[in-house]
Amino acid sequence: MIIDVHGHVSPPNALYAYQAGLLHARGAHGRGRVRISDDDIVASHHAKNPNFGNISHIEHLDEAGIDLQLISPRPFTLMHSEGPAEIIDWFTEETNDIIYRTTQLFPERFRGVCSLPQTLLTDPASQVRELYRCINELGFVGAMLNPDPAEGGVPTAPGLGDRYWYPFYEALCELDVPALIHSASCRAPARESYTLHFITEETIGIASLLNSDVYRDFPDLKLIFSHGGGAIPYQLGRFKAFWAMHESSAEESFSKIMFETCLYTRESIELLIRSVGVNACLFGSEKPGTGSARNPETGRFFDDIGYYIEGIEWLSASDKLALYEGNARRAFSRLS
Amino acid sequence: MIIDVHGHVSPPNALYAYQAGLLHARGAHGRGRVRISDDDIVASHHAKNPNFGNISHIEHLDEAGIDLQLISPRPFTLMHSEGPAEIIDWFTEETNDIIYRTTQLFPERFRGVCSLPQTLLTDPASQVRELYRCINELGFVGAMLNPDPAEGGVPTAPGLGDRYWYPFYEALCELDVPALIHSASCRAPARESYTLHFITEETIGIASLLNSDVYRDFPDLKLIFSHGGGAIPYQLGRFKAFWAMHESSAEESFSKIMFETCLYTRESIELLIRSVGVNACLFGSEKPGTGSARNPETGRFFDDIGYYIEGIEWLSASDKLALYEGNARRAFSRLS
Repeated sequence: MIIDVHGHVSPPNALYAYQAGLLHARGAHGRGRVRISDDDIVASHHAKNPNFGNISHIEHLDEAGIDLQLISPRPFTLMHSEGPAEIIDWFTEETNDIIYRTTQLFPERFRGVCSLPQTLLTDPASQVRELYRCINELGFVGAMLNPDPAEGGVPTAPGLGDRYWYPFYEALCELDVPALIHSASCRAPARESYTLHFITEETIGIASLLNSDVYRDFPDLKLIFSHGGGAIPYQLGRFKAFWAMHESSAEESFSKIMFETCLYTRESIELLIRSVGVNACLFGSEKPGTGSARNPETGRFFDDIGYYIEGIEWLSASDKLALYEGNARRAFSRLS
Repeated sequence: MIIDVHGHVSPPNALYAYQAGLLHARGAHGRGRVRISDDDIVASHHAKNPNFGNISHIEHLDEAGIDLQLISPRPFTLMHSEGPAEIIDWFTEETNDIIYRTTQLFPERFRGVCSLPQTLLTDPASQVRELYRCINELGFVGAMLNPDPAEGGVPTAPGLGDRYWYPFYEALCELDVPALIHSASCRAPARESYTLHFITEETIGIASLLNSDVYRDFPDLKLIFSHGGGAIPYQLGRFKAFWAMHESSAEESFSKIMFETCLYTRESIELLIRSVGVNACLFGSEKPGTGSARNPETGRFFDDIGYYIEGIEWLSASDKLALYEGNARRAFSRLS
């Protein structure tokens, strides 16, 4: 069985029209609601998407052999740096509700990962309410945490090692759910595209954790970094050299960080697994998404992660079981 | 023969005392000068450094079998975001002069790579004068170009694909010298350390070039990205998928970018070479530097890059020749 921990819901366009309406009026027209039927939600997951190889979300999962996908909002749509805060609250709740409905409509195929109304305009302690709602009332199995609610703008958010984040960490531990670390968009004028911003924020986030007391204060915290951890596994030697030079608990913290395999070359996935160990890696594809183009050399989709994993000769059968399913079940304890 | 394209001069402390003096008075005391003798320069390269495994710069090169090292200023000391502009000019020239003297004192061991007085307070067209001076008058073989003279602050500098950089590119092409892309420090309050900032800026810099006309406008431009190109080779699948989805000249531009091998694990160097090809890789160690601690598992320094390269079984003898010497000679045509 393959569990994909990095998927995003494919909502009907009505959700984004609703979001645009919130931005148009900056909340002055009130909360309103997204008006879509269950049939619309089923249809949008079966619709062939010309941006993603002209097949549907469900067909993508079938072709890649993904049995169960954990779906969260599409991160670059989250607009966490907009305001007022109410429009972030409302859009977050509406999106999470659509994810909930999707999991009810495809109960064998999808489980929910919620986003939180992260804005620098309100307090994290108030933002965790949505986490409790999604986990306790809607049966979600985890959260997506944006390490940069400023979306590359100013003022900046503190790094993940800062106590600013402790209300989130406390709630995640209390509920025993993991967070997928995944940034949102990147404000103009940006030197980074949003996709590059993901990578940068994962890199900065891991480094911030390593230089902090977070894992000492929250030994059971489960954070999963997207896209193979940005630059960190590739640049790991720089950190190892630093650890050898300086007294540091960073290496112990590093051993607690989890990664998902959303990298679109076999070589990179191999480097990730060698660098952090099989047990720190969870299968993730972000499918359909950035990698949903066919590689002209192989005919396979770039985001067919299982194809790469099957090509790594030194992985044992039990390694693959851990990558495909076991590690995800251990991290997302509410899956069972 | 091993040519290391990524080294930094080990100047006597007097250089940094001079720099502090420029900052204290913000230039009000005038230019002054660094007062050091040739003996001081020789001694500082032979001094055992407790931060770098308690051996000297020269001993580091001997132990790693590096025959010739191209030395530039130590990047995180460059203070490009300080002002007024004069103090950047003065410190740049004094540092380049010490590099020149070092190359004269160790003519078999070192060749010069200059820094430029990059500040957002003056125009790039005026900053290239120092490049002409160093190449034409001091026998330098290349330049170090900081892709972020704002040092993580605001206002930000345009990405490397912007026409802002064209005066540098024109001069580099006219002189037929390469630039090592390497950022400087990172202003507080920073979410990144300076070493992480290097990685981020390399990642952003490459992506900016790929989305630009730079290599169309300067087909002979030679840019070498430090530290194996930040996150890019590890994240290359994301870009390849994008190229497969969209009409783009990015892949052709990518083929013109060069990388140096300053990564401190064999797995990462292997990934780099597989991702970009042997001919795009130049031996670089940044030795002595961030990686100059002994790995307790092997007893070797983390920055002993040749040790990793020798461990890559699929490299042929001619591949190694290219990595160690041939590619550097092709890029740094003034070496011969």
